[in-house]
Amino acid sequence: MNTKLRIAVVGAGYWGPNLARNFRANPEWDLVAICDLDRDRAQRVADGVGGARVVTSLKDLLESDDIDAVAIATPAATHHGIARAALSAGKHVMVEKPLADTGVKGRDMVRAAADRGLVLMADHTYCYTPAVLKIRELVAEGALGDILFIDSVRVNLGLIQPDVDVFWDLAPHDLSIIDFVLPGGLRPLSVSAHGADPLGAGKACVGYLALPLANGAMAHVHVNWLSPTKIRQMIIGGTKRTLVWDDLNPQQRVSVYDRGVDLSLQAVGGEARRESTISYRLGDTWSPALPEHEALGAMATEFARSIREKRPARTDGESGLRVLAVLEAATRSLAAAELAPVADIRASADDLSLIGEAS
Amino acid sequence: MNTKLRIAVVGAGYWGPNLARNFRANPEWDLVAICDLDRDRAQRVADGVGGARVVTSLKDLLESDDIDAVAIATPAATHHGIARAALSAGKHVMVEKPLADTGVKGRDMVRAAADRGLVLMADHTYCYTPAVLKIRELVAEGALGDILFIDSVRVNLGLIQPDVDVFWDLAPHDLSIIDFVLPGGLRPLSVSAHGADPLGAGKACVGYLALPLANGAMAHVHVNWLSPTKIRQMIIGGTKRTLVWDDLNPQQRVSVYDRGVDLSLQAVGGEARRESTISYRLGDTWSPALPEHEALGAMATEFARSIREKRPARTDGESGLRVLAVLEAATRSLAAAELAPVADIRASADDLSLIGEAS
Amino acid sequence: MNTKLRIAVVGAGYWGPNLARNFRANPEWDLVAICDLDRDRAQRVADGVGGARVVTSLKDLLESDDIDAVAIATPAATHHGIARAALSAGKHVMVEKPLADTGVKGRDMVRAAADRGLVLMADHTYCYTPAVLKIRELVAEGALGDILFIDSVRVNLGLIQPDVDVFWDLAPHDLSIIDFVLPGGLRPLSVSAHGADPLGAGKACVGYLALPLANGAMAHVHVNWLSPTKIRQMIIGGTKRTLVWDDLNPQQRVSVYDRGVDLSLQAVGGEARRESTISYRLGDTWSPALPEHEALGAMATEFARSIREKRPARTDGESGLRVLAVLEAATRSLAAAELAPVADIRASADDLSLIGEAS
Amino acid sequence: MNTKLRIAVVGAGYWGPNLARNFRANPEWDLVAICDLDRDRAQRVADGVGGARVVTSLKDLLESDDIDAVAIATPAATHHGIARAALSAGKHVMVEKPLADTGVKGRDMVRAAADRGLVLMADHTYCYTPAVLKIRELVAEGALGDILFIDSVRVNLGLIQPDVDVFWDLAPHDLSIIDFVLPGGLRPLSVSAHGADPLGAGKACVGYLALPLANGAMAHVHVNWLSPTKIRQMIIGGTKRTLVWDDLNPQQRVSVYDRGVDLSLQAVGGEARRESTISYRLGDTWSPALPEHEALGAMATEFARSIREKRPARTDGESGLRVLAVLEAATRSLAAAELAPVADIRASADDLSLIGEAS
Repeated sequence: MNTKLRIAVVGAGYWGPNLARNFRANPEWDLVAICDLDRDRAQRVADGVGGARVVTSLKDLLESDDIDAVAIATPAATHHGIARAALSAGKHVMVEKPLADTGVKGRDMVRAAADRGLVLMADHTYCYTPAVLKIRELVAEGALGDILFIDSVRVNLGLIQPDVDVFWDLAPHDLSIIDFVLPGGLRPLSVSAHGADPLGAGKACVGYLALPLANGAMAHVHVNWLSPTKIRQMIIGGTKRTLVWDDLNPQQRVSVYDRGVDLSLQAVGGEARRESTISYRLGDTWSPALPEHEALGAMATEFARSIREKRPARTDGESGLRVLAVLEAATRSLAAAELAPVADIRASADDLSLIGEAS
Repeated sequence: MNTKLRIAVVGAGYWGPNLARNFRANPEWDLVAICDLDRDRAQRVADGVGGARVVTSLKDLLESDDIDAVAIATPAATHHGIARAALSAGKHVMVEKPLADTGVKGRDMVRAAADRGLVLMADHTYCYTPAVLKIRELVAEGALGDILFIDSVRVNLGLIQPDVDVFWDLAPHDLSIIDFVLPGGLRPLSVSAHGADPLGAGKACVGYLALPLANGAMAHVHVNWLSPTKIRQMIIGGTKRTLVWDDLNPQQRVSVYDRGVDLSLQAVGGEARRESTISYRLGDTWSPALPEHEALGAMATEFARSIREKRPARTDGESGLRVLAVLEAATRSLAAAELAPVADIRASADDLSLIGEAS
Repeated sequence: MNTKLRIAVVGAGYWGPNLARNFRANPEWDLVAICDLDRDRAQRVADGVGGARVVTSLKDLLESDDIDAVAIATPAATHHGIARAALSAGKHVMVEKPLADTGVKGRDMVRAAADRGLVLMADHTYCYTPAVLKIRELVAEGALGDILFIDSVRVNLGLIQPDVDVFWDLAPHDLSIIDFVLPGGLRPLSVSAHGADPLGAGKACVGYLALPLANGAMAHVHVNWLSPTKIRQMIIGGTKRTLVWDDLNPQQRVSVYDRGVDLSLQAVGGEARRESTISYRLGDTWSPALPEHEALGAMATEFARSIREKRPARTDGESGLRVLAVLEAATRSLAAAELAPVADIRASADDLSLIGEAS
Repeated sequence: MNTKLRIAVVGAGYWGPNLARNFRANPEWDLVAICDLDRDRAQRVADGVGGARVVTSLKDLLESDDIDAVAIATPAATHHGIARAALSAGKHVMVEKPLADTGVKGRDMVRAAADRGLVLMADHTYCYTPAVLKIRELVAEGALGDILFIDSVRVNLGLIQPDVDVFWDLAPHDLSIIDFVLPGGLRPLSVSAHGADPLGAGKACVGYLALPLANGAMAHVHVNWLSPTKIRQMIIGGTKRTLVWDDLNPQQRVSVYDRGVDLSLQAVGGEARRESTISYRLGDTWSPALPEHEALGAMATEFARSIREKRPARTDGESGLRVLAVLEAATRSLAAAELAPVADIRASADDLSLIGEAS
């Protein structure tokens, strides 16, 4: 049996306590310290898990030689600074999503980890839920065939964040999941974002992301802070089967439909012939039993194993960069939107000339 | 009591029999004739409603002086020619959606009807369902407040149409409904369409429409022929309340949520002050009882009344034009798509210069 | 190819038009006549299916030699008289549920049919739905193992019938379905009925039937006219798998759960040992694709085939008798209810003597 | 401000930790000690709440003068002994459901508390959920009118308990809730229980309770350990409105339907006239917003307040007795079942004499 790895949690706000609780409970890890500028807050987190050293100086923390790794749960704008310092001190690093607040900073973190042979892991928590692990497995083994489209909806009455819009707040979940289940990761050909700020909050509260993929496929994400009903649903359409993940239906989260459209493509005679070879499958539905485990526990285990096995974590820094790249492109798309204007519906003088058969 | 109005149904394909059955059953109407180039097909429709004159020549039909109006249920490309001829013969006209296959033709139809003082009505059937009539009423009386966003989803395993893409096939439903419930109709500032043809069917089978509205609001439509599950849901968010219409839940189709975000806008002190005035309402949900009636019956009645009262129908030619304008803009948007590229996630030489705090 | 069989529908009320429509559409049958004392009513049914002879005298109808069979859709109290006359005239007979209004009459009908070698079929329509046919098939092939329990719920805001209580109105559906899917049919060891008439309607409007089966199994039926929500759900628990039929979920009517409790019974050491061998299975869920067809059409076909093949129909007179026997026993149980009284919760003088450890 | 009341939790098994956590967090209470024969188990519970005195002797615990009350979470058979000792020592007592394992013991506990002027409270946790508190309020204010029927379903794949059957395990929840919401509490006229043990587990695993109430109303409970799907639903039908509580639908737990049957009872002309006065309401549905709080916290507060205000708790010992009385009657009913036999469906010799109209 290996000795336990030793970790400190940096940041005792909303997410830190969850990390602390899971590292404490995980047999791979020894939770050593909680670090936060606010000593009381750190102390409460430490008390909540049965005690841990409380540290208020990051510098002091990183100089400790009883720490192998840090888990960072601070505001996104501070991720780069903390992670870089930790990597320089030789610590493995896990970072809450998003990896950083800019792609430039994220890439610098990835490079710094690679240079030192340290693990840099993105805390894409949803990827370690039983449902998403099963979806990844089904896609990988070809159960769905080639992916045709992914439609992800994540809406509810949500807190309007002070620092980020609805894309940066919610879409990292959808994007990291799509990145995790797609073989090869999320690599859209382009990004088109549409947002609305109908309350005048100063940022998009309703958002849509269209992500064309290779081979004519498309991913699409709908995130929304203003919906009174909560929807957490992803449809993944494939050439063989289509999967629906409804995260709010604990009795049947994942359903695999053996239904679809088949289009034979021996286009011998063009259009007419092609139509005649469309066929529909209306087969059974199957819902796999899912094990019960907490996602954060599985993530803590993966972090430990990637360190011990000297390999990238399943949600490594690169996956964090792919998510960041889409978020940054979304922001650019929002800023630059040039859209198709709608024609005036009033008749114009040159309408007549366009119509042949009417007088 | 007025005498009955006399109507002929033109087109005995998929939709014609439904029109014939409803005009036959409606006390305002006398169904006189069924017209189709294919006599057998027309005869079957006539037999199915207990008999009606069968006509194969549109010219003969329109020369009959026992006909006040025609209902056109032929392919969209033929709407303009048939409607123009009928209007020239002094008949009122109802046309299956979409009004025409181009805006130019549609505008010509509207002008021709106006010139002759005849009713031109768009068969936007969904607008006459009990649910949509109630939604229109609720919006009109201010129950929702100002509209913030509309999100409409219409997906299922659908027939891949030979002549039109998924936008022209399914979105007319969503667009005509949105046009019907929005005070002033659907007048988006622009249209952005994203489509995917992952099967290589030669047309979009998955489609998304983003429609920015005035005052920062937005409408969005998702139409999809490839989904194994059927979803027919529209969320209409307002400043006072938010409405969810789930057309596949007969026990509770329309729910009105007294939940939302309130943002006080006396921005005296900028960002910090504005945040402090965000508040959340978590109030009751209310689901109005809906009468039971067939939409087509209500539409037939509206057609009769608009003729008798010499007023535009609730879904008049102008509403058909507004729908057409969005569909045409969508087609242009699809063709012209210029999208935000995604950055390469590999580090580039000038990354370093962009980062201040790291070395 | 056989010639068509010729049928008359007797009774032009609520159910007769459905029978007429389905026999008219069925290639096995020639719908010859509609018989009802009310000529206008019969004529309307005949018109609705494109024409048929209208007869007002049952005697005249049965003397016709162009009729092979009759389908009876009249009030239950008249089933016996009409069916006996038809059988005496050599006609095959199908009877709407319940077979008769008493078991004595029902048995007489069965005997009369048997004596003449004629088919007597019970119109247990639900048994011919795709869902119930699939359930019967799954049970028959052993997919569920031995049946442990059946729980059936059929509640909604229903019409309070003038002549029958909620048991006789709704439970024939549940009982005929259970009879159809259980190998060997529904043969409960006893029947216990509990009903409530809280509105003072003069009959039970809320009803429960407990039906102990062989081997410790049990069936239970809940029928209710006063529920504002509609529920049509049956759970069939088996030793191998458990099936849930939700008739109001068209997207997934039948679900088969590979979940359950296993109890090994090598009771070597009694209670303690037995417990240690309880185990739980939490396996996958599977939902079979169901064909789309109308139940009445399948029933009409089965009626024809049972006549041609000179065999009992799948829902033969005996199945009608088993349903009747339960309904009659339910009525007796309601009348004779002797129930366990509830103890007075006030302390009694002899309580103390029953308690050892307290003073 | 009053000083805090001081409590000890007795029993550190499944439920004890939840009690300890809630008393620790409640501002009315000071959690002083955890008592269990197993010191390690008690220590773990104490550690989990940030520390408390650990006691292994009930006698020692009750002799402490720094304890005002005890909360008992031990097996039901031990409730009486522990509660009597605590009451004798002058402590207020809360007891996990069921109050005791026999009515005799329960009555003795109630009397002992009354004699000493101490509070004896039943831990009917569900009664303190936001949903049940709201239901009680709605019934009390007459929103439903008079109660016509209550139908409660509580089924899932459950642990087969070693010591009790499914009635004693699950039905206390339903019964205590019904007792809580019915004005005057649950006082059925009789109890009829039907159970099945199809696995041969030695006790009922599937159970049904029929509870006729005054004025023709009825309550019914279905409990089941063998269902693969989880259902937690209660329908409460009233003369004015009907309420449905679906505890597994967090987005709409409580729905109030303004739908029902109205039966005017001015029975001037008997049956025919009475029917003509049946009418149906198909009104709106309303779902009240529910506050978010943990039921155990509200229960701890109620315990404190009943002590301070020297009044019975909302779920007092008497309510525990009413639940016990039904459970005991259910056990007697199961043992004594005399049920209506089902007639043999074969024709008997005297059938003929019973039929007048047939020969």
